Amino acid sequence: MERVDRLKKLLGNRKLDALLVTQPQNRRYLSGFAAGDPNISESSGALLIPRRGRPLLLTDFRYQLEAEAEAAGFEVLIYQRGLLDLLGKILVGRGIKRLAFEGHYFLYRTAGKLEVLAKKHAIKLTPTTGLVEGLRLRKSPAEIEKIRAAVRLNEQVFQEVFRDLRPGMSERQVAIRIETLMREKGADGPAFETIVAGGSNGAKPHAVPSGRALRAGETVVIDMGLVLDGYCSDMTRTVVLGEMAKNTRDIFRLVRKAQKIGIETIRAGATGAEVDRAARRIIEQAGYGKRFGHGLGHGVGLAVHEGPGLSRRSKRKLKAGMVITVEPGIYLPDWGGVRLENMVAVTEQGCEVLNSDTTFLDM
Amino acid sequence: MERVDRLKKLLGNRKLDALLVTQPQNRRYLSGFAAGDPNISESSGALLIPRRGRPLLLTDFRYQLEAEAEAAGFEVLIYQRGLLDLLGKILVGRGIKRLAFEGHYFLYRTAGKLEVLAKKHAIKLTPTTGLVEGLRLRKSPAEIEKIRAAVRLNEQVFQEVFRDLRPGMSERQVAIRIETLMREKGADGPAFETIVAGGSNGAKPHAVPSGRALRAGETVVIDMGLVLDGYCSDMTRTVVLGEMAKNTRDIFRLVRKAQKIGIETIRAGATGAEVDRAARRIIEQAGYGKRFGHGLGHGVGLAVHEGPGLSRRSKRKLKAGMVITVEPGIYLPDWGGVRLENMVAVTEQGCEVLNSDTTFLDM
Repeated sequence: MERVDRLKKLLGNRKLDALLVTQPQNRRYLSGFAAGDPNISESSGALLIPRRGRPLLLTDFRYQLEAEAEAAGFEVLIYQRGLLDLLGKILVGRGIKRLAFEGHYFLYRTAGKLEVLAKKHAIKLTPTTGLVEGLRLRKSPAEIEKIRAAVRLNEQVFQEVFRDLRPGMSERQVAIRIETLMREKGADGPAFETIVAGGSNGAKPHAVPSGRALRAGETVVIDMGLVLDGYCSDMTRTVVLGEMAKNTRDIFRLVRKAQKIGIETIRAGATGAEVDRAARRIIEQAGYGKRFGHGLGHGVGLAVHEGPGLSRRSKRKLKAGMVITVEPGIYLPDWGGVRLENMVAVTEQGCEVLNSDTTFLDM
Repeated sequence: MERVDRLKKLLGNRKLDALLVTQPQNRRYLSGFAAGDPNISESSGALLIPRRGRPLLLTDFRYQLEAEAEAAGFEVLIYQRGLLDLLGKILVGRGIKRLAFEGHYFLYRTAGKLEVLAKKHAIKLTPTTGLVEGLRLRKSPAEIEKIRAAVRLNEQVFQEVFRDLRPGMSERQVAIRIETLMREKGADGPAFETIVAGGSNGAKPHAVPSGRALRAGETVVIDMGLVLDGYCSDMTRTVVLGEMAKNTRDIFRLVRKAQKIGIETIRAGATGAEVDRAARRIIEQAGYGKRFGHGLGHGVGLAVHEGPGLSRRSKRKLKAGMVITVEPGIYLPDWGGVRLENMVAVTEQGCEVLNSDTTFLDM
């Protein structure tokens, strides 16, 4: 209940009586209820966290057994006719006069219905943004342990697949092998659709694995992450089968240098923009600035993309316990890409790299 | 452009100048742009369909190559600072005074920003619901062919896995095997998380595959679907390894009878509620009414769950070309479940069952 208590304090500060939590990772973070949502229109439930008293998990009969087993300390209520119908029955009796909801993860149409309900019961409705996400930014040692385990498993899968990589295998074959191994080794599943992008496909940062066969000498970008016990890993390796041309090696070294400088810049108190800047400068100075079109990194935890960001616009200061990726890349149309991604945990003095895999990193 | 033209007609009828399409399957249906969204907060783009003139696909640099290749007839515009920033630049010049957006698939917070933008440019904003989903309800013969192919591949995967099922295998192992085979045989991926639920786990309609070993004699519910060329299949078989007890057989026969009666009731002009009623009555009459806690079925197409529904509340009439599941089930806590699910295409006179797999259906 420590997490719930921190949230209750935030609610008190803002004079809110309760927060309706609909964002799936926020729901899990606060309650332990592990069910996911196939999409925002097919929710497996919501939390109602009152400023005082026992928190509630509202779900439907399909999830009742899991909810009761997983959400320790929560009262589980089952809705028959949907979340809003149940809210209409319970809000008033619990003295909730000021209800907040997650405006950044709530459908416009549903909000309209909630407004009607609130009006009927003279409840003041307040959209909030990122209250629980704010709590999730700094990871506890136990959470970092879970992330470490996810990183470790990810590296094992990568190494097993890497050993068997041969020219002629298709990108799709490799991606299927990776995602199957993840599950066989105990992951909940991939954290995102695995990217395997050979040759010119590597110039698309979000390439979908195709039937294209891998060729010797070209770069192959492999971006993979998994979920283990709810926590995510995210790692990119760029590999070359067979001989590596000198200019390819030069680009690897440049991207790696940018990554190292970025990592050296990370410590509690630095802003995400400063870290991004330090790494980006290396790539810009070599004339590839326009070929690195995305931010340097992002937070990872229960979600594979969460705060804090590392980009030009990241003005906020990093804090100890944050976990972030550092993933510079260079993308050359018709040639391909090189991206190198590790995860680090921010500490007071610097950061700890969570990866141990060094495939093709320091050549 | 035939689909876009039908939508334009709807916009004209409602005196709307354009619709902003954010729902991923709607986006694909209208444009052919196949990229998915990991979640509603990480969109790969939106369509802007004006009542007159060329439709637009708005996306970011990561998807530019795919967008230009896939969205035939669309003008592709790339945003650097997000969708809303780009909209602010193009709406006025195109004479859009009344802009609709998909209120059922639009975040509350984003809608707030869109409202600010609209106000600034004196644009009237109108939330709509289900305009494109309405167009998607009745499938063209070409779409039904694609769904048929997805059903066929799903059955091949099921049969291959079923052949090798043995007591002692874990639910997870079976689910991993199913999802791997789907991909190896060319599916885009699973349409939802595969359910493999042995014994008492089968009493949870949405059970997550566990490490529990399958045992001879118990029921094993396998609910699986895949996406092939964008279109979904969804099928449930309940199987028993080894001897089947008489009471298990009785429940199978009862569920199958409900399914058959449901299928016999389907024809253009019947309501979803009538079909649900006909099947549900069979289960109720045998005393298991409370053990069948979900609707009889749902539409399937680009989305695995779409309209029309088959439930007590489905008042609208079925039409030829709709594709729906028929999936009665009986769930007994501590014992397990039996669910049988086929897909059918509605015709004027009745319906066509799209499945050919009959494993354990008629015993």
